[in-house]
Amino acid sequence: MALTEQQIQEIKEQQSQENSTKRVTSPELEKILYEAIPILDHGFIRVIDYMGDDSSIVQAARVSYGKGTKKVSTDEGLIRYLLRHWHSTPFEMCEIKYHVKLPIFIARQWIRHRTANVNEYSARYSILDKEFYIPTEDKLAAQSKSNRQGRGDILTGDQAQEVLNILKDDSTRTYQNYEKMLNERYDGSVIDENKDGLARELARMNLTLNSYTQWYWKTDLLNLMNFLFLRADIHAQYEIRVYAEAMIETLKKWVPITHSAFLDYRVGAAHVSSKGLQVIKSLLNGNEANFEKSGLSKREWNELMEVLEKKDLLI
Amino acid sequence: MALTEQQIQEIKEQQSQENSTKRVTSPELEKILYEAIPILDHGFIRVIDYMGDDSSIVQAARVSYGKGTKKVSTDEGLIRYLLRHWHSTPFEMCEIKYHVKLPIFIARQWIRHRTANVNEYSARYSILDKEFYIPTEDKLAAQSKSNRQGRGDILTGDQAQEVLNILKDDSTRTYQNYEKMLNERYDGSVIDENKDGLARELARMNLTLNSYTQWYWKTDLLNLMNFLFLRADIHAQYEIRVYAEAMIETLKKWVPITHSAFLDYRVGAAHVSSKGLQVIKSLLNGNEANFEKSGLSKREWNELMEVLEKKDLLI
Amino acid sequence: MALTEQQIQEIKEQQSQENSTKRVTSPELEKILYEAIPILDHGFIRVIDYMGDDSSIVQAARVSYGKGTKKVSTDEGLIRYLLRHWHSTPFEMCEIKYHVKLPIFIARQWIRHRTANVNEYSARYSILDKEFYIPTEDKLAAQSKSNRQGRGDILTGDQAQEVLNILKDDSTRTYQNYEKMLNERYDGSVIDENKDGLARELARMNLTLNSYTQWYWKTDLLNLMNFLFLRADIHAQYEIRVYAEAMIETLKKWVPITHSAFLDYRVGAAHVSSKGLQVIKSLLNGNEANFEKSGLSKREWNELMEVLEKKDLLI
Amino acid sequence: MALTEQQIQEIKEQQSQENSTKRVTSPELEKILYEAIPILDHGFIRVIDYMGDDSSIVQAARVSYGKGTKKVSTDEGLIRYLLRHWHSTPFEMCEIKYHVKLPIFIARQWIRHRTANVNEYSARYSILDKEFYIPTEDKLAAQSKSNRQGRGDILTGDQAQEVLNILKDDSTRTYQNYEKMLNERYDGSVIDENKDGLARELARMNLTLNSYTQWYWKTDLLNLMNFLFLRADIHAQYEIRVYAEAMIETLKKWVPITHSAFLDYRVGAAHVSSKGLQVIKSLLNGNEANFEKSGLSKREWNELMEVLEKKDLLI
Repeated sequence: MALTEQQIQEIKEQQSQENSTKRVTSPELEKILYEAIPILDHGFIRVIDYMGDDSSIVQAARVSYGKGTKKVSTDEGLIRYLLRHWHSTPFEMCEIKYHVKLPIFIARQWIRHRTANVNEYSARYSILDKEFYIPTEDKLAAQSKSNRQGRGDILTGDQAQEVLNILKDDSTRTYQNYEKMLNERYDGSVIDENKDGLARELARMNLTLNSYTQWYWKTDLLNLMNFLFLRADIHAQYEIRVYAEAMIETLKKWVPITHSAFLDYRVGAAHVSSKGLQVIKSLLNGNEANFEKSGLSKREWNELMEVLEKKDLLI
Repeated sequence: MALTEQQIQEIKEQQSQENSTKRVTSPELEKILYEAIPILDHGFIRVIDYMGDDSSIVQAARVSYGKGTKKVSTDEGLIRYLLRHWHSTPFEMCEIKYHVKLPIFIARQWIRHRTANVNEYSARYSILDKEFYIPTEDKLAAQSKSNRQGRGDILTGDQAQEVLNILKDDSTRTYQNYEKMLNERYDGSVIDENKDGLARELARMNLTLNSYTQWYWKTDLLNLMNFLFLRADIHAQYEIRVYAEAMIETLKKWVPITHSAFLDYRVGAAHVSSKGLQVIKSLLNGNEANFEKSGLSKREWNELMEVLEKKDLLI
Repeated sequence: MALTEQQIQEIKEQQSQENSTKRVTSPELEKILYEAIPILDHGFIRVIDYMGDDSSIVQAARVSYGKGTKKVSTDEGLIRYLLRHWHSTPFEMCEIKYHVKLPIFIARQWIRHRTANVNEYSARYSILDKEFYIPTEDKLAAQSKSNRQGRGDILTGDQAQEVLNILKDDSTRTYQNYEKMLNERYDGSVIDENKDGLARELARMNLTLNSYTQWYWKTDLLNLMNFLFLRADIHAQYEIRVYAEAMIETLKKWVPITHSAFLDYRVGAAHVSSKGLQVIKSLLNGNEANFEKSGLSKREWNELMEVLEKKDLLI
Repeated sequence: MALTEQQIQEIKEQQSQENSTKRVTSPELEKILYEAIPILDHGFIRVIDYMGDDSSIVQAARVSYGKGTKKVSTDEGLIRYLLRHWHSTPFEMCEIKYHVKLPIFIARQWIRHRTANVNEYSARYSILDKEFYIPTEDKLAAQSKSNRQGRGDILTGDQAQEVLNILKDDSTRTYQNYEKMLNERYDGSVIDENKDGLARELARMNLTLNSYTQWYWKTDLLNLMNFLFLRADIHAQYEIRVYAEAMIETLKKWVPITHSAFLDYRVGAAHVSSKGLQVIKSLLNGNEANFEKSGLSKREWNELMEVLEKKDLLI
């Protein structure tokens, strides 16, 4: 990520604001407001605005006239209770807005989360930046043999180099041709004064899916946690997971009590099926593990034993 | 609306906050933050929190690194353009949260607007306030003859008094019986120490629909405008319209440019059907009004002539 | 529930339809289509329409040109996998529509599930039926001592009778006064020809919250399962749980494979927190139960031991 | 669009179904169910399933026990009234599901409509088809001078040929490199048995935005009309407009009364601002057109005169 001088300046100007407000503030989040946190080779997330803090959840749950907080310990107990028992609406009372720069193929996954507000940089209206995501060598994984939508071993040697060359060459060439069709370079300069350029809404179709786009993305705390639960998961694609992980750090600064409860009740929690629960009860009562009687598929059985860290019971 | 001493104190404490923030603020809205604005006999709205201002719409539309505002005149032009051409997403980038006290029968209309976040005071968990909506005499309208879901003339004399008596007596009696079943008074005092009270989730069913409830209600600016467009309309029920009208005043303080565009392009705008447009064109070309050839129903024809203020062409 | 002759006739007419379609059908659900399944004293649910069946989930997950189903066993494996791993979108591809008659205080809980479409009988436009929910004696529970939003022991004797009398008397009287204000009886007959009636939108506010209303309610399969998971839960209020339980039976007829997976992975599943999982692992490794080191609150510890059916470890 | 033999066969099998149902059916829509309607060079839409017809709107609006339809003329009047007065919920009671094949850059516009259900073909899991959108020559428009997100004149001669060559060459080359990185061809055959292929979730990033994807897309009638209103509009990009136009034809077959009202009250309607309405009234009263006093911007004035077809008043 290389911000232009102007962008750096604009960010600094925003950060230098000192406004007075009667609203609640989140002091730790204020410290990093507007800051571009680098992700991948050219991406970033920036927290642009937010509404509410941990106390707002309590305040809404109690529909109170005053501030929610009486004592931190009481608030913590209530927030943990709400999250544990799937009470959703008080968490919707906090809102956060990000500015995100990300490769288009990741943007296409991200936007599947519909309960959010989005304004994307328009390639009908403007020229996209000349930036493409090229993975580092340690991320060039082969197709997984066991999981049709996962990664296996890392590619090495000539093949890794070949892949990197393809990705670099093709994105560079397609971008150059994008400029040629537009008759305009990425910096706005015209190529041939005697020609009209192809409409932007058409020329963009020549770009590759690793081109970077950017958007403003705003969501409430509940839906943010849903997003992070799914996208920070080990089964999520690496290139979206790094965004989710960086956002979990902003969650920690914004609403520390909720963040802690989120780790306990969502990220680190185990969801055990009815049949799986019978297996656990049976083991706790001192019975032998019995796959045949469990009613679980082999895959489910092994998933359960992984969760319980009973490697000896894998089959 | 009679706030308790404690409620008044809690509101004052919130209003006395002076926090420093790097976020944009809306100075006029800050002035009335947390204030209880009276509606009907016991209701109110209070703005509890907000995110963004007019410049946030511009900033999001441009997906900019810095603050949206360059010049107020440019921002105004853009905001008006966006609203006029049904661009919706930039308006979703601002958010507002209200605390509302309202009669249950109005809450049931209100909640039909689903794109909002709600935490309602729980009558499973707590005892409802001893407050009921009783209309003033000038609002005691008869059923409309022409519009099955509207009001006609104002009732007068004995009949008006009879209606008021019924409403007062029935809400008072059902509330007293609510307390009796709960074995607990509205102030939390126990009635008979030797008895258990009926579960709150059951006792509440004896209350009448004019009982007041309250909730926190949060929505984005786009959906707020959709709500206000429908509920401040002359066809909306009076008892919800007064809430919408008070909220339009908060809209004006929060985002004055958007407020002005909203009045021009939504509240005061006319939606003319394809056939209606033909009639206007024909009149503008100096033709006689011709209902028969218009293809409009009589009702539509008259609706159009009302909009055009051509009373002489009503049929 | 007492359907009128006309209603019975209308239902019969719908059931006698024999239309030919190229769409998939769900034969078991067809058998009960339009049928009014009684709930509580005057309520019901009726399945009015549906789209898709188990095979539609598979078809959508595969984005296939043909019908999803190759073999039932393959479909079952995929559906179970999708539900287990929180894949949500394929379940949104099936849709169902109910006609529901229910007390207003239950309707107010129900409507909090926003991802559904609703058309409610309008009391601005029409007169509500003269029907109120009166609990049976075995449902007249006292307020729970331990759970502020739950029920405790059943009330008995005089107190039970007193409660029933209050509920019956107050709903009857308020309804009679509703008719008086309307100057119109529930059957549409006018009371006093020389008087105007109060507008319906006003008169309705005198009704108690146990009055029955009705609506058309339509949702997709994913959101139906979310609704049923929360509302068929033991902590949900009895009066909504009975609706959810009846709807689970219609789920079984409609999409039997999904229904079975839903029972296993949602209804009967256990959601174990990160800390709770540590306790289970420790017990499985033969360690003594250690509440102090668990980091759980007493409440959480006991919730966990209930789930594991280790009554001896309750504290 | 070239369907494979197998796809053609699968479609035929679906079309040959003759199931019996008690649900309402839409006979004209049944005739084209599952049929692939070609759009652009390789795209299509197929109606896969639907729920309800015009009578379902009436039935829901009336919350009726029987079928909505009494008389077609009554239904038509009600449907037109509902649409004219922005009653939205009855239209949500009908649902439709499409299978769509479309270029990725169009898919990215389309998915901005969030109130729909989507299952997209997964390029993490499967290999994308070897198909790219190449515009026909008459669609190769230059960037508009007056509208930053629009098209101007058609490019001709050498420049048109150059653009077509770039688009064809680049998509072909990037696809071939996609296959090389995958070590697998589009038909599933392996290229080099001694190599592992790059993970699909990574290789896909080399594809250009004119590559075709496909999805199942399901929405209710209200949101379908919102989509069609915006995307069949003259300001929408041509490549999405052709999809919207084809879908309007399916709307006509499905719900003919609603389709007709939609054309009158939405597609062909004019939305006149408060200030614009003053201008019309003034003209109707025989006054001279007065731009200065109108308060309209020059742009808005001209937009209004275009709508009124008063070319002589353009400024």
